[in-house]
Amino acid sequence: MIILGIDPGLTCTGWGVVAKSGSRLSHVANGQIRTDAKATMAQRLVELDAALTDVILTHRPDEGAVEEVFVNVNPQSTLKLGQARGVAMLSLARSGMHVAEYPTKVIKKALVGTGGAEKQQIQHMLKILLPGVKLAGEDASDALAVAITHANMLGSHR
Amino acid sequence: MIILGIDPGLTCTGWGVVAKSGSRLSHVANGQIRTDAKATMAQRLVELDAALTDVILTHRPDEGAVEEVFVNVNPQSTLKLGQARGVAMLSLARSGMHVAEYPTKVIKKALVGTGGAEKQQIQHMLKILLPGVKLAGEDASDALAVAITHANMLGSHR
Repeated sequence: MIILGIDPGLTCTGWGVVAKSGSRLSHVANGQIRTDAKATMAQRLVELDAALTDVILTHRPDEGAVEEVFVNVNPQSTLKLGQARGVAMLSLARSGMHVAEYPTKVIKKALVGTGGAEKQQIQHMLKILLPGVKLAGEDASDALAVAITHANMLGSHR
Repeated sequence: MIILGIDPGLTCTGWGVVAKSGSRLSHVANGQIRTDAKATMAQRLVELDAALTDVILTHRPDEGAVEEVFVNVNPQSTLKLGQARGVAMLSLARSGMHVAEYPTKVIKKALVGTGGAEKQQIQHMLKILLPGVKLAGEDASDALAVAITHANMLGSHR
């Protein structure tokens, strides 16, 4: 089973693909999608959708998982984040995938054992769980973390 | 020229289509899209995208305009609104339309002459500007209002 994890954002959306075979997990790919800050909001959303659709067509995931975004104190930032997140969820769901959502704390707990884990701890665990992985950046790391969380949840529920 | 206005929302998205010929404006259609509150967030966004795509394929608008949503005091509501708004903007822009954005105050001022106009005043003006129009509801009214605002702006800019 191929799982695509997403850490959505308007400026930068992280994505990570893992494969699960029995209880064995392996890294497939990860990356980050940046949209043109000079473009209009609508154009940026089209860019994000096109880039995610490209990832989906390349890796053909069976399941999707999206991080529940940090709700910013600034309402305008929250709105922008919501717009990017809505587009990301749509891109995945439109391809027929089930899209799971996980709060940041659950992801951190699944990977490191504590909901208050630091980014470095997450990245350290990713390197242990996915030997040889090269992380494209912090958002790609978070995306792989949500993909692994979903892989673990699938294992325990099904 | 055919203009599609949108008042986005996760529970209910209003849409309104007007035709502009010279300085003459006429009503084409308006309606409201409700998504299934029992469905997952991803499924609701797919429903919204599919319904909007249907409206676009039926009316073939040349231009799109979206209301800049009221930023709620509740961050979770703002995030949900952002998700619906992101999907609405994507649906329009993906069809090749330019998508304009107008703050609520600008729309009210364009229609009624004051940024503090009440919903009833907006609906009253819509019935004068678009004789015989039947309004599907408050969100559809707001969507027609943003379409008319864009029609007026096009007239003054181009």
